[in-house]
Amino acid sequence: MPKCPSPMLRMVPLPIASRQGEKAVSTESAFIDSLRALATDPAARGLLDDAAVLEVGDERLVLTHDMIAEGVHYLPDDPPADVAWKLVAVNLSDLAAKGARPVGVLLGFTLGEAEWDRAFAQGLGAALAAFRLSLLGGDTVAAPARVLGLTAIGRAAGPVPSRSGAKPGDLLWVSGTIGDAGAGLKALRGELAPSSALIERYRNPRPRLEAGERLAPLVSAMMDVSDGLLIDAHRLATASACGIDLALDSVPLSEAYLAACGEDRIAAVTAGDDYELLFAAAPDTVPALLALAEQLGLPFTRIGACVQGAGLMLSDHGAPVPLPPSLGFEHGT
Amino acid sequence: MPKCPSPMLRMVPLPIASRQGEKAVSTESAFIDSLRALATDPAARGLLDDAAVLEVGDERLVLTHDMIAEGVHYLPDDPPADVAWKLVAVNLSDLAAKGARPVGVLLGFTLGEAEWDRAFAQGLGAALAAFRLSLLGGDTVAAPARVLGLTAIGRAAGPVPSRSGAKPGDLLWVSGTIGDAGAGLKALRGELAPSSALIERYRNPRPRLEAGERLAPLVSAMMDVSDGLLIDAHRLATASACGIDLALDSVPLSEAYLAACGEDRIAAVTAGDDYELLFAAAPDTVPALLALAEQLGLPFTRIGACVQGAGLMLSDHGAPVPLPPSLGFEHGT
Repeated sequence: MPKCPSPMLRMVPLPIASRQGEKAVSTESAFIDSLRALATDPAARGLLDDAAVLEVGDERLVLTHDMIAEGVHYLPDDPPADVAWKLVAVNLSDLAAKGARPVGVLLGFTLGEAEWDRAFAQGLGAALAAFRLSLLGGDTVAAPARVLGLTAIGRAAGPVPSRSGAKPGDLLWVSGTIGDAGAGLKALRGELAPSSALIERYRNPRPRLEAGERLAPLVSAMMDVSDGLLIDAHRLATASACGIDLALDSVPLSEAYLAACGEDRIAAVTAGDDYELLFAAAPDTVPALLALAEQLGLPFTRIGACVQGAGLMLSDHGAPVPLPPSLGFEHGT
Repeated sequence: MPKCPSPMLRMVPLPIASRQGEKAVSTESAFIDSLRALATDPAARGLLDDAAVLEVGDERLVLTHDMIAEGVHYLPDDPPADVAWKLVAVNLSDLAAKGARPVGVLLGFTLGEAEWDRAFAQGLGAALAAFRLSLLGGDTVAAPARVLGLTAIGRAAGPVPSRSGAKPGDLLWVSGTIGDAGAGLKALRGELAPSSALIERYRNPRPRLEAGERLAPLVSAMMDVSDGLLIDAHRLATASACGIDLALDSVPLSEAYLAACGEDRIAAVTAGDDYELLFAAAPDTVPALLALAEQLGLPFTRIGACVQGAGLMLSDHGAPVPLPPSLGFEHGT
């Protein structure tokens, strides 16, 4: 069985998209900076969070819009129903990270081959039914390529955790297991032996909605892990103006991952599409967090701590480990 | 100077997109029907309205998501700043039709040529500044084609007019003038002599936000005219389960339109991109409507009446006129 590449030896493939050159990344980064200048409302959270948070009367509405493009975010032969599921799930994962309960979605759909469209609509129906959601509106257009967008709207019952609230002394946690979806993508590409458990994690991510809602009052910062654990932890550290010590050996891996990739933790922490929750919380919340994990049947694993300083520091069994050249998937806001 | 095509002699070109065959339209229509089945929440208004209306506490939030694609909704050599304007304006026009004041937008952007992206961001900034809006969030993705999406969020101070409230006896009105944008597109294509006034209407539509907000308490039904006056009037009639008598000779045409196209009213009423307001209101609102038009400096013209029955009936100086084979731009939800 092929193994995942060894740490440091070569880059872990990004989620399908061809890696961009530095120039393209810096150009995109400049573009996103220019958008940030337009995000003047506090509700926008400076475009630095997973979602916008709008105060409406006494309520907090959480809004997110994520897109997926064929050949970039999904494979052309992925089943259309799975593409629909993923489009819904990636957006709901942003709501989960803000502790919001989804209310509904608006769809932006590019029409194409009729059979594909029909299967997509069925899959969308199944995804919305699974989350007990209604389609609220949207648009269908003719377009030369498949680019699908979804706006998800949620309601938060209490304060909405940001990425920027972590404080030195907080512990850093992650839900579930890391790296499965990235390994599932490799399995689909024939780079690993087929594994239905891993492929399922890639194609049918489960947004941690209940966990997010119940974690929201306990955490100091929270976000979803979509672009790779390391890059997302780095973003949380940057937003919170603190450093993060992350212990590679504590990163939770599934049995399916270990069977397919062994102990290749660098591959796991730099692959995208986990859609788990990454959160910082004060040490006195440990009993509440462990009790909640037990109730949910979803592990929360302590993977590090927030510290004075800046940036991400990796260790493995107590020994420092240099950061890999890429921390994850850089693309997108 | 070339004239617009004579009524009935040939079809008015659709907004850029190549006309689809009947099969494609019926396939799309089946697809949209399958989406409608997913719109179970009353907030979705059955996907039959311009926007979703979400009750949040004591407030009504109005949400819309429209997309535009290169070569379909705008010309590849349209200035990127105008594309940004149009993307904002078409969405705000939906809010205007629901009497909602815009609160912010989420952008779905496909990255492309850096210079174009930069000019788009500048144009987006100018558009948002013109409407005093903040970018609240969104997504940027690499994609093989330009497909731009925008979600606009608005607040309605009072009841939100639907398309379905028109009653027999109501008068039918339209704001501004009709057909200018369609003629502007023809001018850009070289089918008409250049006219900066008409091209401006095509490239820089002005959503009737203040008018919409102030009309909302007066009307029984309201929508924006985006796909052609006839097709949109037909939709209003269908949604309201009434018929509409529409007097072609009363349709307001601008001086620029008359100079370019003469009295070609069929071209005007079947062309898209007007972004005016079409509304039905009881006869006793006439004085209030005329006073409001005066205050706004925006004409409201009575173009017909809602009647018992179904469908759209056209007349010209009192004589019946057959409906043209296409009432407007059929594409999209």
